[in-house]
Amino acid sequence: MKLFEERQTLLKKQYSELLEQQNIKIEPGNGIYSRYKFPVLEAAHVPLNWRYDFDERTNPYFMERIGVNAVFNAGAIKFENKYCLVARIEGADRKSFFAVAESQNGIDGFRFWGEPILLPPVNEPDVNVYDMRLVQHEDGWIYGLFCTERRDPAASEGDQSAAIAQCGIARTKDLKNWERLPDLKTKSAQQRNVVLHPEFVNGKYAFYTRPQDSFIEAGKGGGIGIGYCDDIQHAEIEKEYIIDEKRYHTVYESKNGQGPAPIKTERGWLHLAHGVRNTAAGLRYVLYMFLTDLNDITKVIRKPAGYFIAPEGEERIGDVSNVVFANGWILDDNKVFVYYASSDTRMHVATSTIDQLLDYVLNTPEDGFKSEESVKSILELIERNKKQGYN
Amino acid sequence: MKLFEERQTLLKKQYSELLEQQNIKIEPGNGIYSRYKFPVLEAAHVPLNWRYDFDERTNPYFMERIGVNAVFNAGAIKFENKYCLVARIEGADRKSFFAVAESQNGIDGFRFWGEPILLPPVNEPDVNVYDMRLVQHEDGWIYGLFCTERRDPAASEGDQSAAIAQCGIARTKDLKNWERLPDLKTKSAQQRNVVLHPEFVNGKYAFYTRPQDSFIEAGKGGGIGIGYCDDIQHAEIEKEYIIDEKRYHTVYESKNGQGPAPIKTERGWLHLAHGVRNTAAGLRYVLYMFLTDLNDITKVIRKPAGYFIAPEGEERIGDVSNVVFANGWILDDNKVFVYYASSDTRMHVATSTIDQLLDYVLNTPEDGFKSEESVKSILELIERNKKQGYN
Repeated sequence: MKLFEERQTLLKKQYSELLEQQNIKIEPGNGIYSRYKFPVLEAAHVPLNWRYDFDERTNPYFMERIGVNAVFNAGAIKFENKYCLVARIEGADRKSFFAVAESQNGIDGFRFWGEPILLPPVNEPDVNVYDMRLVQHEDGWIYGLFCTERRDPAASEGDQSAAIAQCGIARTKDLKNWERLPDLKTKSAQQRNVVLHPEFVNGKYAFYTRPQDSFIEAGKGGGIGIGYCDDIQHAEIEKEYIIDEKRYHTVYESKNGQGPAPIKTERGWLHLAHGVRNTAAGLRYVLYMFLTDLNDITKVIRKPAGYFIAPEGEERIGDVSNVVFANGWILDDNKVFVYYASSDTRMHVATSTIDQLLDYVLNTPEDGFKSEESVKSILELIERNKKQGYN
Repeated sequence: MKLFEERQTLLKKQYSELLEQQNIKIEPGNGIYSRYKFPVLEAAHVPLNWRYDFDERTNPYFMERIGVNAVFNAGAIKFENKYCLVARIEGADRKSFFAVAESQNGIDGFRFWGEPILLPPVNEPDVNVYDMRLVQHEDGWIYGLFCTERRDPAASEGDQSAAIAQCGIARTKDLKNWERLPDLKTKSAQQRNVVLHPEFVNGKYAFYTRPQDSFIEAGKGGGIGIGYCDDIQHAEIEKEYIIDEKRYHTVYESKNGQGPAPIKTERGWLHLAHGVRNTAAGLRYVLYMFLTDLNDITKVIRKPAGYFIAPEGEERIGDVSNVVFANGWILDDNKVFVYYASSDTRMHVATSTIDQLLDYVLNTPEDGFKSEESVKSILELIERNKKQGYN
């Protein structure tokens, strides 16, 4: 067989095996959620016809023409009875863009739609776009809020790294045709992790924000904020209220940010967020949860200590190691599918239920902010267990 | 059996198994090059008699007397029909030095020669030497250009890290006897990744340089430069011309540097280089390629977007994780052996051909410097594939 056909046959075989791979729940887990053996999306899931030129005359070696580096940080939504992820695909060229992948059951068999999303431009061209949060808003639109990044115009010629991150806004009814709205305006020099609240609050659109001083460091800014605006077509936030601050000696000491839009439950709005601390090997990103008041979304009513998900096993390693990040989850009846990325490289799913997550948020001890308090929590638990006969 | 003999027998057995291990090509790869299952050189390849004292009276435990930490960043040359690597060996003491290892086929069976290279000193003693680029120059000599590092004389007592990197020059006819020439002089505070062009340019020696402000950061300097000098025995470059700049939102945003000397092809000089970007977990090093004009080596005529090789699998982890680096490759008829190191720990080989590499460099889309352009390249490919019947 000729090289061209041989390679094509082998690659197609590998690709279809990957797509048909069934996922396996890892038992027994921690009782809060279940992890799965395989990632749900990786670079290898990107269709071959997006990467390979299938014309033998122009590609005799059947060579990858457009390299894909990673698939991660996906927004998520249940749409037309399918579990849909709007993934961040990063090319070998470092640029990120969005594409929809769907699955029947939410845990395996994710397949990308025919082509990636060509996001309409705004006045100031995006250099890089990433980390879309999808929200079915009560105004009837599905919104995609994402980070749009451009070079810092104040950077010197020698500094090619300084960038400014702001919040881009697009909306759709079908995940195919996207209308681009002007970028969100706030008073902050940098905005990432901006998320639209799914309901109106006093007739206004409410945004979770993350004001930040510089591109990597939160600086004196930081924390998860809330701001309001009347007109989503010219979204401007006058004032941001910090509802969840970064804090010394927690898993969100250096910075934190809202994950996907919160889920409404009987006990409050359930939030998934990421927290960051610094280490000798760079930043460490974990996920944590908290609950806000149904009548006052600026009020955190319960927050368990520590992380909900931290990198484990193979998740620890990737293009940016020691990172888990989530900007998508799907509520389906009582079931919750948490889509999280590991180390800026691949997507995973963790499954749970609203009952379990509320139990976790309401009954995990809160942070005492001291080792002593942590020990006391354990001693208390040991005592209670003694009464049950467990020594 | 006595401990001394037992250990010696076991270690010799392991060592000879390592040297006889056959390498396995990983199929199907990306069609541009092939990776191999095993590294070609690691610390364990360093001969036992360089590390162990074989006298039972002075070494009753058959203890490793001189620890070797890593073998990486090798220069490469085909010499007397053997594939030769001049590897950077780093001891447990952190000092690096050079040693030649040879193989019959270039992909396995590398064996170090009898002893490491004792580099002749120059006026100012080297503290550390590393990353040799080997060039068979048309003047008849094989040159080895390397980095020589000394403590920064301006550093305060409390700062024991500040160093100055400059380019050392040695030459040989047999890889055994080395003549040391004075270090290269340039106007830059720091020079690493200096490489000699294999041909004279207008009767002058041409050097690829990488001017840099400080030891780790390129600062306002950076980019791959070219400079010329008349006399290699007193090499001094008056002016450096930047031919390939670092650039915002590419894989060479923070810094970049020439890999081995470029290979002359019918279509131009084929270059292999490394690009560096910053991440929340530290710097990430990848390899990229470009082509320069045969008649004007300062002119880049084609540069595919993104990286050629990025760390994968076990390559991601090492003394300095998330790094691939190459300063050696061998052209053998049409075949090309790319010797690259992963994470400052071990050496690998990737094999390709001039035809494939030119196809890659000439036909991979160029960088559009925006997500939108990357998506358009993919959409174009999808359209062309539709015409071939691939949806």
